[in-house]
Amino acid sequence: MDTVHQLEIAPGMSVDILVQGMAHCGFGARRLAEAVAIYENMLSGDFTKFLTLSGAMVPAGMRNMVSDLISRGHVDVLVITGANLVHDIIESFGCHCLGTPKSDDAALRAAGVSRIYDVFLRDEDFVSFEELMQRILPQTQKTISGRELMSTLGEKIMDRNSILRSAFDADVPVFCPALPDSMIGLQAWMFGQTKKLSVDAFADIKEIVDICYNSKGSGIVIVGGGVPKNFALQSMLVTPKSFDLAIQLTTDTPENGGLSGATLSEAISWGKISAGARYVTVYGDATITFPLMVAATLERLEKNRKGSMNKALWKSAAESPGDANNE
Amino acid sequence: MDTVHQLEIAPGMSVDILVQGMAHCGFGARRLAEAVAIYENMLSGDFTKFLTLSGAMVPAGMRNMVSDLISRGHVDVLVITGANLVHDIIESFGCHCLGTPKSDDAALRAAGVSRIYDVFLRDEDFVSFEELMQRILPQTQKTISGRELMSTLGEKIMDRNSILRSAFDADVPVFCPALPDSMIGLQAWMFGQTKKLSVDAFADIKEIVDICYNSKGSGIVIVGGGVPKNFALQSMLVTPKSFDLAIQLTTDTPENGGLSGATLSEAISWGKISAGARYVTVYGDATITFPLMVAATLERLEKNRKGSMNKALWKSAAESPGDANNE
Amino acid sequence: MDTVHQLEIAPGMSVDILVQGMAHCGFGARRLAEAVAIYENMLSGDFTKFLTLSGAMVPAGMRNMVSDLISRGHVDVLVITGANLVHDIIESFGCHCLGTPKSDDAALRAAGVSRIYDVFLRDEDFVSFEELMQRILPQTQKTISGRELMSTLGEKIMDRNSILRSAFDADVPVFCPALPDSMIGLQAWMFGQTKKLSVDAFADIKEIVDICYNSKGSGIVIVGGGVPKNFALQSMLVTPKSFDLAIQLTTDTPENGGLSGATLSEAISWGKISAGARYVTVYGDATITFPLMVAATLERLEKNRKGSMNKALWKSAAESPGDANNE
Amino acid sequence: MDTVHQLEIAPGMSVDILVQGMAHCGFGARRLAEAVAIYENMLSGDFTKFLTLSGAMVPAGMRNMVSDLISRGHVDVLVITGANLVHDIIESFGCHCLGTPKSDDAALRAAGVSRIYDVFLRDEDFVSFEELMQRILPQTQKTISGRELMSTLGEKIMDRNSILRSAFDADVPVFCPALPDSMIGLQAWMFGQTKKLSVDAFADIKEIVDICYNSKGSGIVIVGGGVPKNFALQSMLVTPKSFDLAIQLTTDTPENGGLSGATLSEAISWGKISAGARYVTVYGDATITFPLMVAATLERLEKNRKGSMNKALWKSAAESPGDANNE
Repeated sequence: MDTVHQLEIAPGMSVDILVQGMAHCGFGARRLAEAVAIYENMLSGDFTKFLTLSGAMVPAGMRNMVSDLISRGHVDVLVITGANLVHDIIESFGCHCLGTPKSDDAALRAAGVSRIYDVFLRDEDFVSFEELMQRILPQTQKTISGRELMSTLGEKIMDRNSILRSAFDADVPVFCPALPDSMIGLQAWMFGQTKKLSVDAFADIKEIVDICYNSKGSGIVIVGGGVPKNFALQSMLVTPKSFDLAIQLTTDTPENGGLSGATLSEAISWGKISAGARYVTVYGDATITFPLMVAATLERLEKNRKGSMNKALWKSAAESPGDANNE
Repeated sequence: MDTVHQLEIAPGMSVDILVQGMAHCGFGARRLAEAVAIYENMLSGDFTKFLTLSGAMVPAGMRNMVSDLISRGHVDVLVITGANLVHDIIESFGCHCLGTPKSDDAALRAAGVSRIYDVFLRDEDFVSFEELMQRILPQTQKTISGRELMSTLGEKIMDRNSILRSAFDADVPVFCPALPDSMIGLQAWMFGQTKKLSVDAFADIKEIVDICYNSKGSGIVIVGGGVPKNFALQSMLVTPKSFDLAIQLTTDTPENGGLSGATLSEAISWGKISAGARYVTVYGDATITFPLMVAATLERLEKNRKGSMNKALWKSAAESPGDANNE
Repeated sequence: MDTVHQLEIAPGMSVDILVQGMAHCGFGARRLAEAVAIYENMLSGDFTKFLTLSGAMVPAGMRNMVSDLISRGHVDVLVITGANLVHDIIESFGCHCLGTPKSDDAALRAAGVSRIYDVFLRDEDFVSFEELMQRILPQTQKTISGRELMSTLGEKIMDRNSILRSAFDADVPVFCPALPDSMIGLQAWMFGQTKKLSVDAFADIKEIVDICYNSKGSGIVIVGGGVPKNFALQSMLVTPKSFDLAIQLTTDTPENGGLSGATLSEAISWGKISAGARYVTVYGDATITFPLMVAATLERLEKNRKGSMNKALWKSAAESPGDANNE
Repeated sequence: MDTVHQLEIAPGMSVDILVQGMAHCGFGARRLAEAVAIYENMLSGDFTKFLTLSGAMVPAGMRNMVSDLISRGHVDVLVITGANLVHDIIESFGCHCLGTPKSDDAALRAAGVSRIYDVFLRDEDFVSFEELMQRILPQTQKTISGRELMSTLGEKIMDRNSILRSAFDADVPVFCPALPDSMIGLQAWMFGQTKKLSVDAFADIKEIVDICYNSKGSGIVIVGGGVPKNFALQSMLVTPKSFDLAIQLTTDTPENGGLSGATLSEAISWGKISAGARYVTVYGDATITFPLMVAATLERLEKNRKGSMNKALWKSAAESPGDANNE
C-alpha cells in the first residue's frame, strides 16, 4: 500500500508543485490532486470536454479563467446558469464591486445596490444591461433554440474576455437550460412583447444529445451542481454513451440526497457515467478549488508541451550527427 | 431580554407542542419555531402563497404532504424542478424503493436500478413513465407556456395524491422553469420529433409576473433553493411588490456565495423581499424540517379553527339567551 | 424491496407518529426514524447507556431534556464538554438570553454581554458563577479524578434540573475529558493557587475503561462529536468489548476527515463499534434532531409500558378463571 | 468602491501570485487572500504567535508543514489534539497509508487496519507506538504539567520532522488540553499503573495564561476549531489582553451554534479577540487551505527578505561615496 508522504512547502513553489505534493496526502488535498490528474488526462486526450457552471462564479471573479479555457480549446460544450451569463454581460461594460456580507441589506437597497454575499452590483449596471439586451436581442423569423440565442448574443458582446463572446469566437455551444430563470429570460420576454423572438423550450435537447451521441470519449467538469450538472448528465443518459472522465467541485455533500451533492458514483447507477470511468469530487468553495485545478493543469500541459518540444529538438539533434556532442 | 427556557419533553406530546417549546431555545430549534410562526401567519392571512420545491423531495416521501397542502388551499403558486414532477408521475403508477447509499453503483446499473442517495428506482418504472408521457403529452395548435403544459399533464394523472393532479384540481399554476432539464423535457422533445408540441421558453414569465403584480400581500416557502427559488424571487423583482413573509429550508449555508444558501436578507438588497418582511432560514435536511413545519402549522390552524368555532358557538350562545342553558 | 411510503401529516399528530411515518421515507427522515428505533432498543434492553454531549446544547435549551433522561435512568455514563457544564451551573442560578447572531459584537462586549450564536450571556452571571465555584470547589486530601470532582460539584448544585445535580442524584458518572478547557478548569486553577485541589489528568481513564470492561452490552448516543465522542469510543477500544448500538447526531460530514463527522462505520475499523452493531448517523442541527429523537422514543416507551400493563392486566384476568367468560 | 478583478491564470504561476489574484475576487477566494495578508502581518511583526490544530492533520500529510513552521520560528505556542500527537509519534518510526473511504470497515478490522476517512493505519504501528510510549514516558518525582510531559516526550523523538521534536528543539511550548482523550493518555495511564507519573489536570492553565499575559501583541491561527481553539481563546480571556490578529480555517459554519464554526467576531463579544483586531475565517478543508496559506505567506516573506537584502546592498552601495553617482 502506498504511504502518505508528508507535504513539503517550498517558498515560491508553483501551484502544480504544491498540488503534486497533495497527491500523497489525505482528504481534500488528495482529491484535488486527483482532479488535476483527471483534468490533465481530459485536456490531453481525445475527449469531448463538457464544462458545467453553477453558483455565482462570474461575480466572484472566475470569468476570465473560464473564457480563457474556452479560447485555449479546453471546452467543447458549456452548460451554464442564466445568472452567470447575465453577470458575464455586465462585466463586458460594467463591473462588480468588493462588498461585505455584513452590510445592512435594506440600506443597500435604498442605495441602489444588490448583494451577492460579499460582492455588490449597482442598479445603473442593471439598467445598462437592460438597454444592451433590448439592443442586441435578435428578432427571429423562425423559432430558434436557446443555444442559437446564446450564440447570437455572444456575437454582439464586444469584450473578448466575455464567456459568451469567447464561446462564439471558438464556436463552442452554450446551453442555458433554465434560461427563463434569469434576467436574460426577463429581458427576452419583455423584448417579445413588442418584437418577434421565439425560442423553443426543448430545442436545446436535440443539440446537446447529438453532441453526446457523436462523442468518441467524453469528460466533464462540474462546478457547483444544479441544473447545468443534471442537464449535461441526462443528455448522455439517452445515448448509448456515458462519461469516461468526471470531476465535480461542490460545496454540497451527499447526505441530504440533493443532486448538487450527489456522488459521481451515484451517476454510474443511472448510466450517466460509465462503470469504468475515472472520477473524483472535490468538496469545497469553487472560487478556491477551481483556480487551483486550472492553474495546476495548465502548468502541467505547458510542461508536457515543452517536454515534447525538447524531446523533438533532442531527437532532431540526435539525428544530425554533427551536433550531437555539442550539448 | 427574553430568556432561554429549557425545553421540556412530554412523552406523547404533539408536534406543535414540541415546536412551541423550541421557540425559547437557541440555534436551529428557534429558527424552526419561527418558521412555524411565519407559516401560520401566511396560511391564516390574505397572502398569495408561493411554494418552491427543489431537491429530491418526492423520491424521499414528501409528495403527499405537498399535494395535501395544495388540496387544503395552502398553495397559490408552485415552482418546482422537473425531476420532482417526473417522480410525482412515477409515483402515480409505480414506486420508489428503500435502498442504501452504500450499494455498488455499477452492480445497480447492471440490475437496472438507478439510485438517489438511499432511494432506488427500477428501469421498468422509467419505461412505463416514458410510455405514459408519450400517451398524455398534448399536441398543440399554437405555442403554449410551460405552465399550460403542466396543467394538461396534471389533468391526465389519475392519482389524486399526485402533486400535478392536485394542482390541476385546485387550479394552482405549476411552474417548472428548467423544464428541459428533466425527463419530461426529454420526452417532450421526443414527442415533438413526430408530433406537434410547441412550448415557448419565456411564456411562463408573463404568467408568474402577473400573479406577483396582482398579489396584495405575498408569502413564500422555499424548500431547497435552486432554480425554483430564484425564479419565484426574480418574478417579484420586476414588479413594484416584494414578499412580505418568507421561509427558507435549506442545507446550504451563505458562506459559499451560491443562491441556494444565500440569506433571505440578501434578497432584501435586491428588492425581492421587502425591507419590513418577516423571514427565517432553517438550515438542515428538508425531509425533517419540512414535515415538522407543516405538521406543527396545520395543528395550530386546526386549534385556531376549533377555538374560533368554540368562540363562535359561545358567542352565538351568549347572544341567543334562550339557548344558553342548552349546552 | 420495501417501497417508499409517502409521508402523511395529520394535524395534532404526536411526535412519534410523525417519526414512524418517516421510517418509510428517504434521506434524513429515514435516518431519524432509525435513530428512534435504535434508541428504543437501547433504552428497553440491558445495555450500558453512554451519552456524549458537545456543542452549546445547554445554552440552546437542551439542559432539562438531558437531566430528565438522567433522572429517568436512561443514561449510565455521561461524557460532556466543560462548556456545557459551565452553562449548566449558570442555569442553576442565572439565565441565558434570546439574542441574535446579527448583533455588533464590539457593542455587546462594551455592554458586558457574551454571545453564543443567537444566545446571550451577561457578565454578572459569569461573576456569580466564579463566586459559586470558589465556594463549592472542594479541598482535597489526596489526588482525585475529574469524575470525582464532577460528583462533588453536582452535590452542591441546588437546582434539581441541573445535569450535574441529576447525575449526582442518580449516581451517574460524569466525565469531562477536556476539563482544563473550560471556565471550571480556570476556576479550579485559581482555587488551587491558594487552596489544595489536586486532580489527576489520567485518573478518569481507569474509571471509564472499567465501566466499558464490565458492560454486558452497550449503546451510545453521540451528540455533536468532539472530544466526548472520541473519549467514549477510545475507552471501549482498550477492552475486548465494543458498542452494540450507536447513534450519532452531528452537523459535520465525513468528507473532511475530522472525527466529529466520521461515520460510525469508520469506528468499526478501529474496533470501537462491533462489526454486528446497529448504528445510524443523523446529519443536522441537534437542537432539532435530539429533541425529536427523545420525544419519539419516550412516547414509544410509554406506549410499550402501557401495552405491557394492559397485557399484564389481561393476562391476570385471563388467568383468573371466573373472569374468562367476561369477554 | 473597489471592483472585482477577474482572476487570471498563468501556467507555472507561483502559489502567492495566484493568491494575490484572489484578493480581488469574491467568496472563499478573497477570504483566503485576506488570511495570507494577515498571516504575513503576523509572521513579520512582533506578535506572540499561537497555532491551534484540530482534525486529523498529521494523518492527512500536514505534519512537516507544521514542524517546518515551528523550526522557522513562526510558532510561539502550539495547542493541539492528542490524536495529532499520537500520529506525529507514529510517523517518526512508522507510516500512514493511502486508503479509501469506500472500504469494508469490518474487513479492515479483520485485517488489522484502522481507518481515518481515506487514510489507513496498521495495528503493528500502534503496537510499536505503545512500546515506544512505555519506553519514553518519564517517571516523575513531583507532579508535572501536561506541557512538561509533552516536552519530555519531544526530546525522546529522534525524527527531526516530528512536531513534538521540533517544538522541543525550538523551545516552543505544546499544550494538549484534552490529553486524556488520546492514546498518549491511555498509555500514560497504563504506565502509571506500575510506575510513578503524576500530571496535574490544571497546571497547563497557569503556563498558557502567563504567556498570554506577557504577550505584547498576539496572533492566532486556528485550524479546525475544537478544544485547541477554545483553550487558546479562553486563556487570553482571563488576561487584560486579547488577540490582535486571527485566522480560522474550518469546515464548520456558524449556523449550528457550535464553537468550531463560531465566527471570530463572536469571540470579540467575549473579549477573546480585540474589537480592533484584523481577522478572517476561511471555510473549507484545511488540507487544501492551510498549505495554500502557508505556501503563499512563506513566499511573500522570502520576497520581502530578498527585497530588504537588495535594499540593504543598495543602501550600503549608496553610502560608499565612490559609487554615489552611479545612481
